[in-house]
Amino acid sequence: MDQFSHGDIFVGETIGTAILILLGAGVVAAVNLRFSKAKEGGWIVVAFGWGFGVMAGAYTAGPLSGGHINPAVTLGIAISDGGSASWERVPTYLAGQLLGALIGAVLCWAAYYAHFQANRDSEHASPTVGIFATEPAIRQPPANAVTEIVATTVLVLPLLAFGETKSLGPGHSGTGTLLVAFLVVGIGLSLGGPTGYAINPARDLGPRIAHALLPIPNKGSSDWAYAWVPVVGPLAGGALGALLYEAAF
Amino acid sequence: MDQFSHGDIFVGETIGTAILILLGAGVVAAVNLRFSKAKEGGWIVVAFGWGFGVMAGAYTAGPLSGGHINPAVTLGIAISDGGSASWERVPTYLAGQLLGALIGAVLCWAAYYAHFQANRDSEHASPTVGIFATEPAIRQPPANAVTEIVATTVLVLPLLAFGETKSLGPGHSGTGTLLVAFLVVGIGLSLGGPTGYAINPARDLGPRIAHALLPIPNKGSSDWAYAWVPVVGPLAGGALGALLYEAAF
Amino acid sequence: MDQFSHGDIFVGETIGTAILILLGAGVVAAVNLRFSKAKEGGWIVVAFGWGFGVMAGAYTAGPLSGGHINPAVTLGIAISDGGSASWERVPTYLAGQLLGALIGAVLCWAAYYAHFQANRDSEHASPTVGIFATEPAIRQPPANAVTEIVATTVLVLPLLAFGETKSLGPGHSGTGTLLVAFLVVGIGLSLGGPTGYAINPARDLGPRIAHALLPIPNKGSSDWAYAWVPVVGPLAGGALGALLYEAAF
Amino acid sequence: MDQFSHGDIFVGETIGTAILILLGAGVVAAVNLRFSKAKEGGWIVVAFGWGFGVMAGAYTAGPLSGGHINPAVTLGIAISDGGSASWERVPTYLAGQLLGALIGAVLCWAAYYAHFQANRDSEHASPTVGIFATEPAIRQPPANAVTEIVATTVLVLPLLAFGETKSLGPGHSGTGTLLVAFLVVGIGLSLGGPTGYAINPARDLGPRIAHALLPIPNKGSSDWAYAWVPVVGPLAGGALGALLYEAAF
Repeated sequence: MDQFSHGDIFVGETIGTAILILLGAGVVAAVNLRFSKAKEGGWIVVAFGWGFGVMAGAYTAGPLSGGHINPAVTLGIAISDGGSASWERVPTYLAGQLLGALIGAVLCWAAYYAHFQANRDSEHASPTVGIFATEPAIRQPPANAVTEIVATTVLVLPLLAFGETKSLGPGHSGTGTLLVAFLVVGIGLSLGGPTGYAINPARDLGPRIAHALLPIPNKGSSDWAYAWVPVVGPLAGGALGALLYEAAF
Repeated sequence: MDQFSHGDIFVGETIGTAILILLGAGVVAAVNLRFSKAKEGGWIVVAFGWGFGVMAGAYTAGPLSGGHINPAVTLGIAISDGGSASWERVPTYLAGQLLGALIGAVLCWAAYYAHFQANRDSEHASPTVGIFATEPAIRQPPANAVTEIVATTVLVLPLLAFGETKSLGPGHSGTGTLLVAFLVVGIGLSLGGPTGYAINPARDLGPRIAHALLPIPNKGSSDWAYAWVPVVGPLAGGALGALLYEAAF
Repeated sequence: MDQFSHGDIFVGETIGTAILILLGAGVVAAVNLRFSKAKEGGWIVVAFGWGFGVMAGAYTAGPLSGGHINPAVTLGIAISDGGSASWERVPTYLAGQLLGALIGAVLCWAAYYAHFQANRDSEHASPTVGIFATEPAIRQPPANAVTEIVATTVLVLPLLAFGETKSLGPGHSGTGTLLVAFLVVGIGLSLGGPTGYAINPARDLGPRIAHALLPIPNKGSSDWAYAWVPVVGPLAGGALGALLYEAAF
Repeated sequence: MDQFSHGDIFVGETIGTAILILLGAGVVAAVNLRFSKAKEGGWIVVAFGWGFGVMAGAYTAGPLSGGHINPAVTLGIAISDGGSASWERVPTYLAGQLLGALIGAVLCWAAYYAHFQANRDSEHASPTVGIFATEPAIRQPPANAVTEIVATTVLVLPLLAFGETKSLGPGHSGTGTLLVAFLVVGIGLSLGGPTGYAINPARDLGPRIAHALLPIPNKGSSDWAYAWVPVVGPLAGGALGALLYEAAF
């Protein structure tokens, strides 16, 4: 994790995470907003939308920062890396990720501006937090946290293990990044049912802050009571994935 | 952008863009025309159809012209390239792209000929411009233009950044082209909701001209009032993406 | 086309085409048969099922025969190849492809045996030819033939052009084969609406013969009147694609 | 099959198969459980969920064990490999696979804990064995076994043949593994209709044992009467695929 400068890391993670959230929040807007052409596109649309968001963001950020675009991934890499140089860079990664997530959420709002404004029609208005941040299907925070832990473990352990296969390309910028994107599609398809799969603290917290700030008509609550789950769960899962990786390899 | 001859560029972009539009307009016909076997195939069908159209067109054109098949991409590459040789070739790229888009739209009409003729049945006739060109879900040209700008920026910035990762292959003809195709799937899934994602001036203008000329029964308006948005928006987005790329890398 | 022995070509094409048809006819059975778990899976299921059938069949046959598994592809390669050695091998390719298609159709019937037997229930019985061979949505043989010509041209021209990009791997056995599989997904999504996209004479003729022979209850007509379209159309398209390739490259 | 130590094989197969089943059983839970956000996601979701589960599990296990994660694959490789060293390692592979499948099923239950608990509501309770193990659409064990044999043959024969194409990368850890994952998507789409495609004895037996043991309310029968089909069928198919491979190559 130490070949990148602090400046490049910050710029890369900001851009990469902005792209991730623009496409990720975008796809949830696409299938949920009432007049969207992709309305009712189904779960397959959501999962591939997020996955290709990871692909776009991670490959774009790759040459600058390695393309983590997820604090749980940064944490997992720092743990498995060991060196103090790694830990020293973690705050720079996280700062870029959170800023990028905020920017991405605002860009999503801009891209769907007319559609969010249509929420003004109070008869058909619906809560909008679910477009930006995750919401559980059944609200049981401990169970929801377990879901996020399991889903993030199965992101970070394979992501680190993919790096063992040299033919997938150097670091996080060869074919391995595409596999990580497909892995995120798979996690979404398979484990997104209970909580909408944050598996990334920045992915949830940044857009939730944006939702709280943006002037969306009838936007409803930003549901801060739930906000700790998609932060703590993924961080715990990222650490667990890294520890399992260290134990196995 | 200077290793290709004007002749090869023109031929490559014409063929590549024709393939793109044949498959792209084709998929919209497939899910919309009343008797089509793919009727109601859903947004996932539309997004993958366009994405594989990019893949087919760009790889086919690649050895001849680099496979831009999109004026916004050509503009972005010219800006990031800098050299005057690049700008000198831009008109050749654009001419091929527009001609190719026209040809592709005519081929789509030929492939769906019996289905377009079935639109003669006035009781079930429906407007057909949306099969060829983009139409906004909510008609607010400034907001629609913003959507196209954002969506094209997130096409051109990553496309240029992918080139930084050498292991993705040389220029626009290695694995990077497949990633661009998946990126287009992702943009479609995520940001296609408001405007149907032109993100390519030739993709919209060429088929709109074809729609105006083709003898389709009950074809309805070609909606020229909207035609500037999917031309100006993507060009602005392409330029913006290139400038962001130059600033970040 | 001359590095393979007649024996390897025959074996490779038989196995490869059998795999293609097993998975291809299989997916149509999967979404159509009344008790199938994939019933109503939608057009996206059909298109990816056929595409991954191409992938599986072509990579399996690749080391033995180059993995054509389609007479239109063999014709296109022979035309673009030129040498008499190529033409001398064409009959071996075609024989393997037709035999393989027959075997694949019988295997599909075996895999769905209980489901085909359930068609005995005359109250819910439905014609079955569409599972094995293609049927047009609107029966207008000249228009249907045009559809098949266009769709096969856009298969064979890109397939040949992909070979120009050396980084996609040697001949038909590198990444290029995966791209051809995705191209077939794209053609299915975009151009399958009018005729169900044979784009391969063996794919249609072999299973149609199998349908005529297999003891399926209430199986209905094998529709031989239409059978020439998905043979002649794809062959014409394959030749046209090769001629366009020769003209452009 | 002899370059890996018994310890690495056991650890690799346990982890890889756990990942496979977590994502695979997970996707069936996702589309079936009443409150899941992916409810009614359709067959495309199921097939890609299992396929990306194979991708994640096989690439993770690859550097440790070659990433078989399926007794039918292990059997096929042992047959085609020939050497006694291979057979000597088979029990280690199988032990890891069965343990991993059990662990993966328990993790799936943990990730969907609140949703399984919601099955307590007896009015809307439904049997749950189908989330963990396979169930036939039409119960005719001999026909069901034929389906599993055919589907597993078309997994193992191509998987072995892919290894002939050197450009796909070394052993089971290059691009070839991604192709196998897509092949599994294809088999699911095309041949999953009759039996839900076990094509892997561990995939069925491990989760069925887990279902029998887990404290799920109103869980219903674990259907042990059917359990032999998804064990015997895939093993026979794996052997048949390997014999066909040996005969053809």
